[in-house]
Amino acid sequence: MGAPRRGDGIEPRITVITLAVGDLERAVGFYRDGLGWPTDGIIGTEFEDGAVAFFRLSGGPILALWPRESLARDASLPPGPRSSTELTLGHNLASAEAVDRAFAIAVAAGGTPVKAPRATSWGGYAGYLADPDGHLWELVFNSDLIPD
Amino acid sequence: MGAPRRGDGIEPRITVITLAVGDLERAVGFYRDGLGWPTDGIIGTEFEDGAVAFFRLSGGPILALWPRESLARDASLPPGPRSSTELTLGHNLASAEAVDRAFAIAVAAGGTPVKAPRATSWGGYAGYLADPDGHLWELVFNSDLIPD
Repeated sequence: MGAPRRGDGIEPRITVITLAVGDLERAVGFYRDGLGWPTDGIIGTEFEDGAVAFFRLSGGPILALWPRESLARDASLPPGPRSSTELTLGHNLASAEAVDRAFAIAVAAGGTPVKAPRATSWGGYAGYLADPDGHLWELVFNSDLIPD
Repeated sequence: MGAPRRGDGIEPRITVITLAVGDLERAVGFYRDGLGWPTDGIIGTEFEDGAVAFFRLSGGPILALWPRESLARDASLPPGPRSSTELTLGHNLASAEAVDRAFAIAVAAGGTPVKAPRATSWGGYAGYLADPDGHLWELVFNSDLIPD
């Protein structure tokens, strides 16, 4: 391997999004049982810090749920605080009505309503809710970004 | 819209991953100039809290960089602390050598090495680095998950 040269780059790609969770079973319950997302459940328990759940999403990437202590230890970092404003995950829908419906489903599944869906300044329609670990989902209608 | 019924669900999909950043220009510089990722740069400055940069990734989803204060205000939450252990973004590569090379490129681009690439307990090869806002990337070779 030579030293990096000007013009070298890395392909723009995210293969896996891993969310830190405080209680893996609770988190899996929200996504699998509440939202109905496909998973083989908790696997990897034979490895130290290996217990994890993967969800294969439509159109990629993979969503992983991993205990915060495992994630931190694997990265050689101390576990940091929960912080809901580090990221949002956007789930686009085909209409404002679909946003309202998905929001109601996610709240019924145990999501915490953070901002009820409403018209946005840029002409869309969106709301926020938090998963059991405080990770924010934005459910959004954007006429320029309609999912397949 | 009726009330959610048992068996209702939400399609497993992430359209946009938005990372909170402390300095939007610095963050855009890392991903655009350092990693070479495609973007139209900072757009949306005509809207309140609208300044944002989007990167279209191979195989979806879209990566967005958004000032933490904007993200928090939009979600009606107080800005939380930086916390590097809330998530990791996994970028899979086709070999251990490709992990080493990508790691060197990302560090040369201004990423902070967090854990140098090494063999993992599960038979792969991986390292961690942080982007300018502390968001963790795992560069990883997993023979079961080779990117196209």
